Parts: sequence; C-alpha cells; structure tokens
Amino acid sequence: MNNFRRYLLIFLLFPLLFFAEDGSKLWLRFPNAKTGISADKIISKGKNPTIEIAKKELMNYWQGQTIELRTEKSLKNLKDGYTIKSNSDKIIISAAKESGLLYGVYHILRLQQTKSDVSQLNITEKPSYDVRILNHWDNLDGTIERGYAGHSLWKWEDLPNKISPRYEEYARANASIGINSVVLNNVNASPNMLRTDYLQKVKVLADIFRPYGIKVYLSVNFSSPKVLGGLENSDPLNKNVQQWWKEKASEIYKLIPDFGGFLVKANSEGQPGPQDYGRTHADGANMMADILKPYGGIVMWRAFVYSPSKEDRAKQAHLEFVPLDGKFRDNVIVQIKNGPIDFQPREAFNPLFGALKKTSEMVEFQITQEYLGFSNHLVYLAPLFKETLESDTYSEGKGSTIAKITDGTLRPNKITGIAGVANIGEDENWTGNHFAQANWYAFGRLVWNHELSSEQIADEWIKMTFTDDQNFLNPVKEMMLSSRETTVDYIMPLGLHHIFASGHHYGPEPWGDYKGGRPDWSPVYYHKADANGIGFDRTETGSNAVSQYFPPLNEIYGNIKTCPENLILWFHHVPWNYQMNDGKTLWEELCFKYDTGVKNVRDYQKLWDKMQPYVDEQRFTEVQSRLKIQARDAVWWKDACLLYFQTFSKMPIPYEIERPVHELEDLKKIKLDLKHHN
Amino acid sequence: MNNFRRYLLIFLLFPLLFFAEDGSKLWLRFPNAKTGISADKIISKGKNPTIEIAKKELMNYWQGQTIELRTEKSLKNLKDGYTIKSNSDKIIISAAKESGLLYGVYHILRLQQTKSDVSQLNITEKPSYDVRILNHWDNLDGTIERGYAGHSLWKWEDLPNKISPRYEEYARANASIGINSVVLNNVNASPNMLRTDYLQKVKVLADIFRPYGIKVYLSVNFSSPKVLGGLENSDPLNKNVQQWWKEKASEIYKLIPDFGGFLVKANSEGQPGPQDYGRTHADGANMMADILKPYGGIVMWRAFVYSPSKEDRAKQAHLEFVPLDGKFRDNVIVQIKNGPIDFQPREAFNPLFGALKKTSEMVEFQITQEYLGFSNHLVYLAPLFKETLESDTYSEGKGSTIAKITDGTLRPNKITGIAGVANIGEDENWTGNHFAQANWYAFGRLVWNHELSSEQIADEWIKMTFTDDQNFLNPVKEMMLSSRETTVDYIMPLGLHHIFASGHHYGPEPWGDYKGGRPDWSPVYYHKADANGIGFDRTETGSNAVSQYFPPLNEIYGNIKTCPENLILWFHHVPWNYQMNDGKTLWEELCFKYDTGVKNVRDYQKLWDKMQPYVDEQRFTEVQSRLKIQARDAVWWKDACLLYFQTFSKMPIPYEIERPVHELEDLKKIKLDLKHHN
Repeated sequence: MNNFRRYLLIFLLFPLLFFAEDGSKLWLRFPNAKTGISADKIISKGKNPTIEIAKKELMNYWQGQTIELRTEKSLKNLKDGYTIKSNSDKIIISAAKESGLLYGVYHILRLQQTKSDVSQLNITEKPSYDVRILNHWDNLDGTIERGYAGHSLWKWEDLPNKISPRYEEYARANASIGINSVVLNNVNASPNMLRTDYLQKVKVLADIFRPYGIKVYLSVNFSSPKVLGGLENSDPLNKNVQQWWKEKASEIYKLIPDFGGFLVKANSEGQPGPQDYGRTHADGANMMADILKPYGGIVMWRAFVYSPSKEDRAKQAHLEFVPLDGKFRDNVIVQIKNGPIDFQPREAFNPLFGALKKTSEMVEFQITQEYLGFSNHLVYLAPLFKETLESDTYSEGKGSTIAKITDGTLRPNKITGIAGVANIGEDENWTGNHFAQANWYAFGRLVWNHELSSEQIADEWIKMTFTDDQNFLNPVKEMMLSSRETTVDYIMPLGLHHIFASGHHYGPEPWGDYKGGRPDWSPVYYHKADANGIGFDRTETGSNAVSQYFPPLNEIYGNIKTCPENLILWFHHVPWNYQMNDGKTLWEELCFKYDTGVKNVRDYQKLWDKMQPYVDEQRFTEVQSRLKIQARDAVWWKDACLLYFQTFSKMPIPYEIERPVHELEDLKKIKLDLKHHN
Repeated sequence: MNNFRRYLLIFLLFPLLFFAEDGSKLWLRFPNAKTGISADKIISKGKNPTIEIAKKELMNYWQGQTIELRTEKSLKNLKDGYTIKSNSDKIIISAAKESGLLYGVYHILRLQQTKSDVSQLNITEKPSYDVRILNHWDNLDGTIERGYAGHSLWKWEDLPNKISPRYEEYARANASIGINSVVLNNVNASPNMLRTDYLQKVKVLADIFRPYGIKVYLSVNFSSPKVLGGLENSDPLNKNVQQWWKEKASEIYKLIPDFGGFLVKANSEGQPGPQDYGRTHADGANMMADILKPYGGIVMWRAFVYSPSKEDRAKQAHLEFVPLDGKFRDNVIVQIKNGPIDFQPREAFNPLFGALKKTSEMVEFQITQEYLGFSNHLVYLAPLFKETLESDTYSEGKGSTIAKITDGTLRPNKITGIAGVANIGEDENWTGNHFAQANWYAFGRLVWNHELSSEQIADEWIKMTFTDDQNFLNPVKEMMLSSRETTVDYIMPLGLHHIFASGHHYGPEPWGDYKGGRPDWSPVYYHKADANGIGFDRTETGSNAVSQYFPPLNEIYGNIKTCPENLILWFHHVPWNYQMNDGKTLWEELCFKYDTGVKNVRDYQKLWDKMQPYVDEQRFTEVQSRLKIQARDAVWWKDACLLYFQTFSKMPIPYEIERPVHELEDLKKIKLDLKHHN
C-alpha cells in the first residue's frame, strides 16, 4: 500500500516536473519525430557528406511531407543560398552547393520547430555575406582572451588523436544558422599556431567542419618567419620571408585544401607588423595575399591599430588606412571594428566604413561581452549589431549604410565578409549565460540576412530555445529587446565610453588614471570630466574626429545641438548644466540614465521570476542567478559613476532617485581578481 | 593682489562653509552668551560643588533674566526634582537637593536652546524613578561587551593618576538629562573589579561624578570571595563569605561614602551564583542586601536567568522568580529585561512585570543596539522604550502598566529604578552613530519623566543637536519616529525573534542550527519554520508561555485571532497561507514587511540627502555613510530571510516586490569577523 501510494504520488507529480536542462542543446531542440520519416520520403542524388548530414537531420527530426534535395548549378548566383518550394505533399530544396541544401534543411526544421505552415513555401535565400565568420580568441594553452564560458573548446593537447564530440556539435550549430567560416585562434597569435604539429591538429578540425560547410582560418603572427622559421627578420619585402610564407602556405593547403586564409593583427597593442621594417600595412597584407591567391585564400587585415600618440585614438585607424586605399590586393579585406574605439556598449560607428573606396571592408563585431558584463549580464546584442549595419555613412550619399558598403551592394567588392568574436567556451551551455546563446544565434542569422529585425530573431530564438507560449514569448522578447539599451544606461550612457576597470573591463573605474601608463588606456582620457563638464571634445575645437565623417554627419555630430544625445559625450565636452532635450540638465540626465538602468534590471528580475512556470528548473535558476549579479552590478556601476562624476559636477543627485549605497572610496578599493581570459 | 583675491575668496565663501563638527558636544550645544551674564545676576546661598557647576553653566550660557537658586527642604517630596517659577525679570529654581537645582538649570538652558518662552514659567518636576541608571558593559581590559562606539571611556590603566577630561563631560551630559546613577562595569563581571587597586580608581570617577549628582555602582562577580578572597567557596550562607563581603563593603564605603550598590548577574549564561551552592537567588541577593543596608546601598539582581532546559526560554525567568516573591529584602530590586528573551527588535513584554507583587521590579532596557544594527543603523529607540512602559500587565486589573508598576504608583516600592545598557564609548561622538546620541538622550529624558512622548523627546533632541529649522526638524523627526518599526520590518517582523547570526548578532542567520550547542542559542529554536508554517507556539498547545500573562492577556495572546499581528509569530506557529487582517497570506505579509523595511531605509537616504543644506558637512557625511550601510543591510536581511523561509513556504515572493539580489547559499557563507565587544 505504501509503495502504491508512493507511485501514485510520483505519477501525479510527474507532469509538474521539468527535466533538468543544461542548455547544451542550444536552439537545436527539434521535437523528436514520433514515428520517424521513412527513408523513401527523402529524395536526393549523389553521395556527399554534407547531403548525408542533411538527410540524417531529416530522418531524425522531420515530421512532414516528402522532401527532395536538388543540387542545381543554375542557382550559382545565390552563392550558398537556396530555394524552398512546397505543397502539402512535397518540399523541394534546391541549391548550387551542398551546403546550401543543408541550410535549406535547417530552414524547414526551424519552420517546423516554430510551428509555421510548410505547405505553401516559396522561399529564395541568398546570404548577405560570403564569409560569415566567427573569430575565436582562443589561445593554444586552452585559455580564451575575453572568454567567459570556460576554457577553449579546442583541446590542442588531445588533438589530433582524441576528438571531442563537441567539435561536430559546434559545426552543426553554426551550420544551422549559416556560419561558414571560423578563425580558430586568438588575433594575438602565437607563432606556434603555424607549427607542423599544430597544423595537423587544425586539419582534424577542418575535416570535421567541412561537411557542415565551414572553412577554417588562422590568425597568424607577423613575426612567424623570424620566430618559427629562424629568419633574420620578418620584413615582408625580404625574399626569404616571402619564401617562408610560400612554403608554409603550401604545407597548410596540402593538409587543408579548402583552407580559408589568414587573419592578421599587426602593429597594434604590441603585436609585430610590417611597420617594424618601415613597410606599410598594405605591404604586409599584400605579401600574404599574393601567396594565398593561388589557393583561393584571403587575408583579413585588422584595422584596429592605434598607438599612444597625441592623436585621438578614435581617429587613428582612419588616419592609417585611408592613405593606403587602392593599394591592397583584391583578396585582402580590411576588418574594421564596428566603432573606432573598442566594442563599447555604444559607439559612434567607425568612420573608416565607406572611407576606403577601393578596398574591401568587413565589420568585426564582438559577440563575447568583454564590455557588456561578461556572461553575467543578460544583453541581447542584435540591436547593437543592427545599429551599426544600419548606420548611414553617406560615403556615396544618403543611404550608404554600413550594410550596403560591406555586402557588395554599393561596391562590387571582390570579397564580402563579416566577423564576430565568438562567445563560445567549453561550458555545458556553450556561452555561460543561457541568454548569451541568443547572441551567437543572432550573429549567425543577421550575417546570413542583415535585413532580419532584432525582434524577428529574438522571436525565433525564444521559440526554439524555450517555448512558444505567448506568456513567456512576449515578456521575454521585450526584455531581450530592451536589454542592450538598459546596459548602456547603467554602464555608460550618453556616449560615455571606456571607463572600465583596467585589464578585465568588468566593473567601473571612471577614476582610472594610470600615471606612467599609456594615457589612451586610462578612463580619464575618455570621459575628461572636470569642473566644467564631461565628455570628449571631438569637434573642431577638440580632436576634430568629426571631420572623418562624410557630410552631413560631420556637421550633425560636430554641433552639440544636432548631435544625437546618445552620443553627445562621445563627441562633445558638455557643461554639467547643459539643457538636454527633455529639459533636464546634463547632470540630471546622467543620473536618471543610470537609475533607469538599475530599475530596468530589477524589472527583468521580476519578469523572469514570473516565467518560472514556463521553463525548466535548471535554466530558470541559472538565469535568475545571473540576473541577481546583473542587478547588483548595475547598482555598483551607478554608484561608482555618479559618486565619482559628482566630485566634478558638485550637484546633488536628483532626490527622486534612489541614493547610492556605496562609498566612492570603498568602490575605488575594489580590485577584482579577473584575468583577460577564461 | 593675489593675496587680496585669496582673502576675498575666503571671505565670500565663508558663510557657505559649516565648521566641521565631530558630534562630541552631543546635545549640549548651548549658544555662547554673546556678552555673558554678570555674576550678580546669579543668586545662590552656600558653597557646594554642585551649585558651583550650576552657576558656571549659567555664567557660560545663560542669556536671560536674573536667576535665583534656592535649596528648599520643603520640596523633599519632589526627591531630586525641582520647581521653576519666572517672570520677565527673574527665574527662581527651587529644589530640596543641590542636584535638583542643577537639573533645573539644565532645564532652563534647554528652554533657551529650543527658543521657548522663559518669562512665565511655573514648572514642577518630579522624576519618575529614583535610580536612573546607565549600565556600562565595560570590561577592565577596555573592551565593551556589545559596544559599538569604540573602546571603553574608562581608562583603567591610567587611573587613578591620569584623568581624562571626558569623565567630567560624561557626567555633565548625564546630569543634563537627569541620569543619576552609573554601573561602571560589565554584568559579566571580573572579580578584579573589587580589588583594592581598582576600587581606588573607581573612587576617582565617583569623585568626579558626585558634583553632577551621579552615584557609582559596580557589577560584582558572585564568586569574588573565592576567587579574590581565597575562600573555600562563595556560598552566601557561609559566614566567612558574608564576612568577606562585609569587609569589602566597608572598604568601598570608606573610599566612596555614597556608593550606590551592586548589580548582579548570577546563575545565567555561565556566571556563578547562589544556586551553585543549592541556595536561591533570594539567598544570594539578601546576603548582599543585608551588608549594604547600613550604608544605604542597594542590590540590583538580574532576572535574566535561563538554562538550556526543555522549558521555553521565554518562561524561565518567571518560573524562577515568582516563587521567590516576598523573600527579597527591601533594598533588593529585581532588574528585568523589557522582554522575556533578550532585547529583540520587538518582544512581547516580560510577564515577570507585575508578577512579583511583593518585590521591587525595575526595567532593564538596552540602549546599545546589540540586536538593532549596532551603531550602523539609525534606530530611534524611544518608541521601543515607550511600548514597554505603556504595556498593560493587568496585574492589578486594567491600567497596570509597566510604568505604573515600576515607578511606585501601583506599589509602594521601597526603591524605584530603571536601567539602560549604555551605548557610549570612546568615539569622538560618544555613540558611533550621531543619531544614537538620541537614544542616550531619550533614555535619560524618559526615565526622568516617562510620560514624555517619543515625539516630544525627538523634537527637543533635534533642536538641540542640529537645528530648529522646520525644513530639517519635521522630516528628520518623522524618520526617527518611524525608524524602529522600519528596523523591525527588515530584521524580524510579525514577532519573529532571535534569528541573528551567532555571537555577534549583527546579520541574519535564520538557518542557524548549532548542532551540539545549546538549542536555545539557535535561530531555528525561535522561528520553528517548517512546511506547515512559522512561529513559536506559546499557546496551550505549545509551551503555554501565554499562561504567564494575567487575564485577559493570556486569552488575547493565546488566540491567533486576537493576538496582535506584530507578535503573531512570537506566540503562534502560523500556517503559511493563514489569512492576515489585510487579506494577504502570512507568507505574503512577511514578504511585504521585509520589502517595506528596505523601501523605508531607502526613503531615509533620500530624506537625509535633502537635509544637506541644514547640517554641517562632517555629521551630514557620517550619517549619510551609515544610512548606506543600513540600506545594504536591509536588503541583506530581506534576501536572507525570504530566501530561507521560502525553502519552507514553497511560495513565490509576490511579484510586485523587488527580487532578491543574493543567493541564499552565498549568504550562508558570510562569516563576519565581529566580536561581541568593541
């Protein structure tokens, strides 16, 4: 009887229990086909590993009508895109490339998963960019620079013999959202990456990724010929150096025939480069490009170069690269961070976009949240990505958005590409915070189709990752969509930038003034708060960075009256009592922004707690826990910034606002034991 | 010119600057007489040190009419009270005792300071209690048990030769509010206190205090005869023991002819006592009382006794002392803590009050905030003191308030007295928190006249200590008056008690369950939370502590429907879903109480910040800083208690409420490095 009652109890409770979920499935939570699909309902010709994967996915998860996969060379103009046409009996997916067919399969599985009608499809998909790439800042010792989800996925010590099942899971996840390229290692590259033993390890990964349509790239250290090859230098015009690279390329392509190419960070933050030998960035890039050209490889050359000169750091990439326009080979693409400083919560867009008229340009986004609360803070980044892509540079007149400049619409670029610094590590849930998965997802979806809205992507992701219950979907979507602006509010509103604690970039350190260090690594260099006001004067009276923007932006940004308020402290040194559009003084506005940020995070906590009935216990609790950290951090940021800036403004924090709960002096003493990497 | 401009600047800024204030002046901030008063306008007869002090105070600070000080034996019935009569030319202060004249002088100085009319006075003041005493829990090594304002004022190593000026300042402050007695040392008394060398030090303090009308008392260790005298035991019926005490008393009174008597903590928390020899508390107290009697000394015998028996700790003092009623000498007074547990933020009153019908009873309050956030939290205690004094015990029918039982109204007590455990240390501002001075002040004023309202006292204190500007006075008074209830809300609302962290009693530790230790020192003993509900059942179905209260209180407290909700968990184990008067469930009510506490402290922060224009920079900043701690601690308490109790209630925290920002497991790990003493 006792046993019977126990079973009865378990039976009754069962529907109330959720299975523990660790998030390892990402958004790939296709409902298992109850009966399965019979093999004869999947029609395809030829044997190809990519098609085999596509068929396996269908066998495992497809629950609908017959599907035919057609390779059609006539669809070449879609690149690795595809078409899908259907009636209630059959779906035909057609593509020029096998990877296109695989993408098409993931497309219909997504439709099934999000409960869309699949009986009248007439879809044509062409990717916005050719090279849709994740840049991993993973080091050979297993650490990740700016990694917040555990150590590196790549187990270099185990490779090439021992192979983690996660390599293929990773490739599958990327393929499911259209990512087709991967830089395996940190841009602060170890020369060892090019050692033969490491290349053999790389080959194993490339072989696993290839059927998923993914090419492997490597970051290379410009000094590799000297360090690794024992040459007298690494001068790009030195024949021996060229020969070394030629032989290295030959070795790589023998192992990996479809190797993508090199990513290079040169003459920046202590990295070696062509300027060490009096050569230009173009000299360096072209040397490599010439060597990779016969193999179809490309060089992605980073424009993130700046030195501790007197010149405003925000201007330096433009000053450095514009004179080189037209000098780069056509298989070089200059990789430009979205903003001219460094992945801040909000930046003005990088004025280099559109300024290189004869050079291929690609955007570099950061998916990992180096400056946005690591994996502790819930920040949905699609709105940030979109903000950049939709920014109008006016380089060819109105409508010259960064999207159109980089995707080939406005310029017949030889190569189009777009990069995101990955937020992926060995954590079970891949990205540390369950919601950070959405940023990986959103990057993939956006670089496939940059016209998707942030909301559409969030909608898809929530339905696939959690549930399509409206009671969950709507509030959670609202939280995601506002989350980036919330984080800007509590971290650095109104165009403030780079007032982070040194090194780890987690908490606030607006008082940071590293005497004897590089001034451009000190927060005070960026906010320039003083008795008169706050902000970096980049107008004609200051660094004149506004002059790097095409008209009318130089005028708009240069005039405090027309400059968008969310960038006002980026471009202007603004008096504390300056009257903002809403009638508040700048000081009051700053106070209210920080306070709004805090309040919004607390609202997210409330919102999430209400979601408990709709989500499994493990993910519910883990997200809840990170939101607590975010709420505490938001107060930390608010108190640190307001108490510090108040020492200049000498004005009271408006009394409607919740008061600081910390002492400025205590906050100054906080030294977090955080490294740059995980 | 430069110098001139500098002086000009200083001159212009001068009115804006407040002098830094360290709070050392307490409420004794009499405006300095601009011209002084001529000596002939102060009329008095005879030379007496107390009258000399009174005259000096008048000379220094009085700015009004002529004053005559008259010693009148006919006013003996006023004890050390006084009368004040005035017209516009003259004020006559009359008293039987010189100390009464000094009190009268402080009275008129207070009237002057608070800008009251002094031209038509007709005042008669008789103190509510004879013995108005501060109990210092100061140890001979300079530490203070439960001291939060630095180490002890008493510099035992320096005495008797080196004399701190603060001894006299302390006496003056006490005299100004009518305190006339002081126990110098901790109730957990060192036998060394009675060593000859220490008595010589005590004599010096007694000599300094005497002109201010203050008598010195000592806490004594019951084992002193054995430990100090080398006797075989300390049995109160042992003739050798009695002889030892007799000789010790003789020695004391030779040094200090007006020595007040002894305070004894016996057979409690490990202290020795008469029960060690099979004797009763009465045996012990009477032995000492007989010896002190010839000198006019008294014995204050603490009722705070309890042992780790199965009996509810809240019942033990009553069980122990009621059988002894009638057996105590008439110079013994039983000192009873306001509540039956231990100075909690809110307790039901101690049922021993009124239960000893033939024995003098005195209340022991705690001014130092052992259980109320130390000196970090702003908590004005007058409402707590008043709540006890106004509690009706019904011991002689309706109207038998604790005030009337202890002040001699209802019983012709031989001695009346009232004690407060001091919150005073060597900090410059005496009490750590500037607002804790108000508790010293309020205790003094209330024990002089327990009919004063909390508001009247706060009003006086604010005017004297800060300003009478209505813009400051009204909001700050409001803050003070609500502050104790606020602290109850965020620490332990609804009758919860003793869920503090072990030892230091600062933060929350509701999960505390000290296996192997005394169960009555574990928080779980007190809250008894389980799946059904929370609270200590003290009704007939539980410990039946309610039976110790006189009718109708036993019925009122014993019935969950009539029990005041602010004590409901003190007397009842209440189901989580029990419906409270406002329609909320108990769980919801608990959540809202904690949240209200947090919100109120944040409101105090806002309120205080607005007071900046009315208060000197130093005190403004120091109070602001402590309020920040209080705000953080309130959130800590709320999160700890709600998250912990939620593991039993299994109910969501109402979603209107700000969410916890801590993890329960993290809070459990907090181990503060706080000692019992300062």
